[in-house]
Amino acid sequence: MALIQFVNKVWFGSGELKRLATELKRLGIARPLICTDTGIRAAGPLDGVLAALGDAEGAVFDGTPPNPTEPSVEAALRMYATEGCDGLVAVGGGSSIDLAKAVNLRLSHPAPLAQYETAAKGQGKIGEVGPLIAIPTTAGTGTEVSVGTMILTHDGRKSTIASPNLIPTVAICDPDLTLGLPGGLTAATGMDAVTHCIEAVLSPLYNPVADAIGLDGLARALKGGALERAVADGSDAAARSDMMMAAMQGALAFTKGLGAVHSMSHAAGRVERLKLHHGTLNAVILPGVLRFNAPHVPDRMDRLAEAAGVATGGDLPEAIEALNARLGLPASLAELGVTPDLIDEMVAHALKDVSTFTNPAKMTGEDFRTLFLDLL
Amino acid sequence: MALIQFVNKVWFGSGELKRLATELKRLGIARPLICTDTGIRAAGPLDGVLAALGDAEGAVFDGTPPNPTEPSVEAALRMYATEGCDGLVAVGGGSSIDLAKAVNLRLSHPAPLAQYETAAKGQGKIGEVGPLIAIPTTAGTGTEVSVGTMILTHDGRKSTIASPNLIPTVAICDPDLTLGLPGGLTAATGMDAVTHCIEAVLSPLYNPVADAIGLDGLARALKGGALERAVADGSDAAARSDMMMAAMQGALAFTKGLGAVHSMSHAAGRVERLKLHHGTLNAVILPGVLRFNAPHVPDRMDRLAEAAGVATGGDLPEAIEALNARLGLPASLAELGVTPDLIDEMVAHALKDVSTFTNPAKMTGEDFRTLFLDLL
Repeated sequence: MALIQFVNKVWFGSGELKRLATELKRLGIARPLICTDTGIRAAGPLDGVLAALGDAEGAVFDGTPPNPTEPSVEAALRMYATEGCDGLVAVGGGSSIDLAKAVNLRLSHPAPLAQYETAAKGQGKIGEVGPLIAIPTTAGTGTEVSVGTMILTHDGRKSTIASPNLIPTVAICDPDLTLGLPGGLTAATGMDAVTHCIEAVLSPLYNPVADAIGLDGLARALKGGALERAVADGSDAAARSDMMMAAMQGALAFTKGLGAVHSMSHAAGRVERLKLHHGTLNAVILPGVLRFNAPHVPDRMDRLAEAAGVATGGDLPEAIEALNARLGLPASLAELGVTPDLIDEMVAHALKDVSTFTNPAKMTGEDFRTLFLDLL
Repeated sequence: MALIQFVNKVWFGSGELKRLATELKRLGIARPLICTDTGIRAAGPLDGVLAALGDAEGAVFDGTPPNPTEPSVEAALRMYATEGCDGLVAVGGGSSIDLAKAVNLRLSHPAPLAQYETAAKGQGKIGEVGPLIAIPTTAGTGTEVSVGTMILTHDGRKSTIASPNLIPTVAICDPDLTLGLPGGLTAATGMDAVTHCIEAVLSPLYNPVADAIGLDGLARALKGGALERAVADGSDAAARSDMMMAAMQGALAFTKGLGAVHSMSHAAGRVERLKLHHGTLNAVILPGVLRFNAPHVPDRMDRLAEAAGVATGGDLPEAIEALNARLGLPASLAELGVTPDLIDEMVAHALKDVSTFTNPAKMTGEDFRTLFLDLL
């Protein structure tokens, strides 16, 4: 028994940014609020977007923090009002698009955001929202086609808010926008996509459509070598395109839910003073959780290993560790500044994370504690 | 460059028919017109649907012909009006669901249907339509999740009318409804699903998401053996479920378009006096078109052969012919009553069919003529 749901319209390919003007017109948006961050503004992609607005005139909100917060959502809402905007365009990585999704929710729904959290059974409160065009500039989160947004809400939680209504109206995935992404960010965001594909396939929910998409995304990124090629040579257009596709596929696949990697990653990501990158956390945590899950889902692990290009009889967690090392990613949470005193709090948050419920093995507090300790 | 679009909500699994009452309530439908045919009424599935309506009260239109026609659409529209209906439920194979999709279009759009035909660039004229719940009772067309409907329009054409707006609001895919389907129909509809998966993967459009779904559907039906098991033992619940999934996957995959098998099948299917079954036609035509296409797409043919479970070095067209024979399906169009005098007309229609444009090899009239002659 299963609910299988996809609600996506995606323009995909080199140069597809040119669709922006037509899509804005089709959606009746004359004055979009463009949600982005100062990094994107400095790096160039924003200029391309501004040049592609056609008849529309945009106001730019560049105050997205690395992990979007409820105050930043409220700042964007104020700018939307004062600038007389009539729709949203998000330009950036997961943070800018997640912020825009939360802004879109709040444009038609009252505060506070915490009431809409999935863990608080808030999904039913999320009705239809206005138009949002998402333009990713990284190949990682896939939030441009997903139901969810992650916001640090006023109550101090890293909250997952999700609903099919929050899927951006249109995504424009133009891999040209990722050509300038530095190797470190390419690696970290790429491993986010890889983790999505893997955890989605391991989720016990029945959804062969999502399984097929996730396995193909994983094969594209790893067996096909796109991730390593994109990190080695950022101007490799074919690798950039494959990674943007793999990122989108990861998010379409996790319609099925994610697993304990994300529970732990969210728990560590909410420690604000560390400002940890979600993709980097996923990369570091993935091998340990795979070892923990493997005995429960041997067949799925075999299919994943095959899609990852691991030789028959090879070990997927080991292959991921070796890949992380080749990509220059850290090997432990200690390297990222996570300290043992944070474990109690992280375990408590991981246990309550929605991703925990679709991990293929049941997780206890002790399990999470052991996994965190191993990673320190 | 590609447009990748999925807009689906599907309840899938044994017993999921029970969702009907909740979905009707959610969509605000109190008085659905239930579009079906006399065969479905006699065979049982309709009773289950009527028992699952909850608070809603349905009026039953059972006048769907084997290949739905514009007059039958108009008859259903008249019943919708006289019975004071406020929404649509389709119960049946491709014919009933296609009829309901056309009724849904006409409820908010003026006659005639021909103006909406894809080949006549009619898609832009198709705006939003009302709610439609599709409940398939065969595992074949996948029209419950697809954009299209095939109608014999007043002008004598077998017209493909397609738009994302025509995708049913909700599909309820309950494989229990197919348990009583006779072996012959199971085989013919199953080969329709197989053909969708194959032709979608061969389409030259860029859509790796659809490719992955199509390959998985093909593997489910053939390599996994579900089709032959469902034909051999109609009560095999696992095989029925896998075939219903493969049918849905075929239709999600053909978001990419279909190919010359469908062009020829549509051309033969419009000869009204023969009343040919679309799935049977696809099964018969598939091997010939595969042989024609193979030299143009060797890599894709290899991937398809692998997904179909054909041993390395084996021949996919030959494997399909052998499968058709095992399933008791005919080996030629002559066996179906198609005569040489029809060829000119069929060639003309095949050339204009929208599926021709996404065949992996360019098709001329001579190509179609040769293929038809070989099949006679």
